[in-house]
Amino acid sequence: MQASLLAAAAKKVSPLLGGLSTDAKNAALAEIRAALLAGAERINAANAADLAAAEKAALDLPLRKRLAFNETKLREVCAGIDSLITLADPVGRVLSARELDAGLRLYQVSCPIGVIGVIFESRPDALAQISTLCLKSGNAVILKGGSEAAATNRVLFEIIAEASSRAGLPHGWISLLETREDVAQLLDLSGDVDLIIPRGSNEFVRHIMKNSLIPVMGHADGVCHIYVDKDADPAMTERIVIDAKTQYVAVCNAVETLLVHAACAHGVLPRLVAALAAKGVEIRGCHRTQEIISCKPATEEDWAAEYLDLILSIKIVDTCEEAIAHINAWGSRHTDAIISANEKTAALFMERVDSADVFWNASTRFADGYRYGLGAEVGISTAKIHARGPVGLEGLVTYKWRLYGSGHIAADYAGGEKTFTHKDIPPRLPPAG
Amino acid sequence: MQASLLAAAAKKVSPLLGGLSTDAKNAALAEIRAALLAGAERINAANAADLAAAEKAALDLPLRKRLAFNETKLREVCAGIDSLITLADPVGRVLSARELDAGLRLYQVSCPIGVIGVIFESRPDALAQISTLCLKSGNAVILKGGSEAAATNRVLFEIIAEASSRAGLPHGWISLLETREDVAQLLDLSGDVDLIIPRGSNEFVRHIMKNSLIPVMGHADGVCHIYVDKDADPAMTERIVIDAKTQYVAVCNAVETLLVHAACAHGVLPRLVAALAAKGVEIRGCHRTQEIISCKPATEEDWAAEYLDLILSIKIVDTCEEAIAHINAWGSRHTDAIISANEKTAALFMERVDSADVFWNASTRFADGYRYGLGAEVGISTAKIHARGPVGLEGLVTYKWRLYGSGHIAADYAGGEKTFTHKDIPPRLPPAG
Repeated sequence: MQASLLAAAAKKVSPLLGGLSTDAKNAALAEIRAALLAGAERINAANAADLAAAEKAALDLPLRKRLAFNETKLREVCAGIDSLITLADPVGRVLSARELDAGLRLYQVSCPIGVIGVIFESRPDALAQISTLCLKSGNAVILKGGSEAAATNRVLFEIIAEASSRAGLPHGWISLLETREDVAQLLDLSGDVDLIIPRGSNEFVRHIMKNSLIPVMGHADGVCHIYVDKDADPAMTERIVIDAKTQYVAVCNAVETLLVHAACAHGVLPRLVAALAAKGVEIRGCHRTQEIISCKPATEEDWAAEYLDLILSIKIVDTCEEAIAHINAWGSRHTDAIISANEKTAALFMERVDSADVFWNASTRFADGYRYGLGAEVGISTAKIHARGPVGLEGLVTYKWRLYGSGHIAADYAGGEKTFTHKDIPPRLPPAG
Repeated sequence: MQASLLAAAAKKVSPLLGGLSTDAKNAALAEIRAALLAGAERINAANAADLAAAEKAALDLPLRKRLAFNETKLREVCAGIDSLITLADPVGRVLSARELDAGLRLYQVSCPIGVIGVIFESRPDALAQISTLCLKSGNAVILKGGSEAAATNRVLFEIIAEASSRAGLPHGWISLLETREDVAQLLDLSGDVDLIIPRGSNEFVRHIMKNSLIPVMGHADGVCHIYVDKDADPAMTERIVIDAKTQYVAVCNAVETLLVHAACAHGVLPRLVAALAAKGVEIRGCHRTQEIISCKPATEEDWAAEYLDLILSIKIVDTCEEAIAHINAWGSRHTDAIISANEKTAALFMERVDSADVFWNASTRFADGYRYGLGAEVGISTAKIHARGPVGLEGLVTYKWRLYGSGHIAADYAGGEKTFTHKDIPPRLPPAG
């Protein structure tokens, strides 16, 4: 079916999803979990076809690894669903409650966003994870996975759609797009789609952000910095930089640029660079760095680069302010850290660096929903509105204002006959329905 | 100066604004208040020039009324600044606090959004109100007011810029655009401008929303509905509908379409329509409405219309569900109300209507930041992410994640050597700086 029809169907049923009880949603999640386990053979067969095609097309090994949906992945997906069931329902929370006048009570209540379009890389486990997150948050979801995983995605989608139907969810709450043309159409459906979450390469995410008026939650680049202050402990510096650069190189929260205070550069760099070299890291340095260690020269392109590889650019700065200015000019508002024993310097850095995550004496690699204890991660956002940094279920809800009156009209307050009380009241919705 | 240069300057100083203490911001607000009072004559002279030009151009009376910046308006602006000074600082609030492991503490802390572009109608008081709201929330602001108020805006801007400079705010935190070309350029500056708040006609707001990739906070239309349920009290219905339609007709939260349950249409409509007619309201009805009362026919254009005038469209529906479907299809996600004595029906309506404000037995005219008790209103948003409905200072801030470690690295947790504790801790930032 066309993307526009699927989106219209999703829009139509989305108001029903906001009214599902926590129990109903958890029961649907349990049904999906059971159906995935029961469908293991069907999933495996589809995944084998995808893997065979990938091998035939000579796709590289990391991609084929992400593509594989084996028993381990299935167990992880089921564990994820289990944990989702135990998480608090993000819908229906009373965020504020105020009496405006006698008998006129205002409640700000969390509710689903509506219809969410998620475009993700060739990882079938992402399909299961995203759709169950949307279910728990009461959102309708339109999925488009990487084409390499098409067969596996189709089977997973069918299993999840059927299981949730059996559990009483309205038909159309979940749908699957399969072509690039569908995605192009999806980006135009601002009337029916409330939010797009793109995952994948930065070129791809940037393309989505530039080509849709639908709000986008996600990040294109992760150009993360570590600033080594003059008051940094050298041993801690080495430990953190090695971790941030090499613990997992192909991720958005890996460090790409090191900024080093001139006063400690001679003391820190030779040993640090030797340790990085031992891990296979290539260094590209500014001209002052090149005076201290032997390395390739860094250009402006390096300051903007997300290498996702064993490469690190290094720049020497004269002040913490210069480091902050560099990060705000060249960074991607993702994650930036300072290493320093000086708490005033650290406070300045954490206040002025305009990024979602600002760290003091810790590796940039901690910027992650699981590590933050959010329970489940929808993605990492570098936007400055709605949700920022690692986004959990909270990022999939918004709120509405509910006003309960008994015939109140505005004219009574305009004339001064009545005045507003504006008094905080207990955050409990009146019993109803 | 060009919009791009002003925006770059605003971006550059914006990190400093986030670090201003509440006292420093309140002192700057007091300085601005004093400067406005001291500059009353200068403001009046400029305003007289704007008013003379408006009279010469034969602009209509309501526009000239909004354009006037007399002593009353100045007093109102000063009272607004006084109340802003007493409001709690929205910046620096700890929204969540969690120990990830011993010595590794994560805080989610509110902070300014950054650089906000505000485009507003020909009301000079709006310039003072918006710039002081941005100051209190630590945002840099780029202003563009209606051209009819150009002289008054320039003087107000100069007074505010000079006063805030004297109070120690960094130069460039506030700037004024004066041409349409500047606005066109502003919409392209997604690298430097974090949010655009457009105010004015719905055509204008829609134009902005369609022509910028910068997030927009605001609303184009206010197509508000009242659904008169079969269990509605007729006297309450009349009272609320008259208020919602006629108390102030040219505002976004006035009702434009009435949905009436078929079971009570014969009982309610004749008397209600007579009362509306007495107030000069023209009715446009669906064919079933026309069978009960004499009125013009309503077309699909009426269901989508924001009249902002003494016109009301009426449609008869057979169920509350049909009313909800009509609102979700034709409404603008602004404000919609149900009148009913049945709390189950009301609960269904308030849950399923996908609007920022959903009211039970109250006039739609209550959808307003002042009436909600938000203290100061930035505007009303019909978007579904970030802020929704009447938006106060809260809508001008975002948050960042601050992680305080002591040399922690991710590798220690990947290998299972260490595990996360994920324990809630008091929401107090460590002392620093």
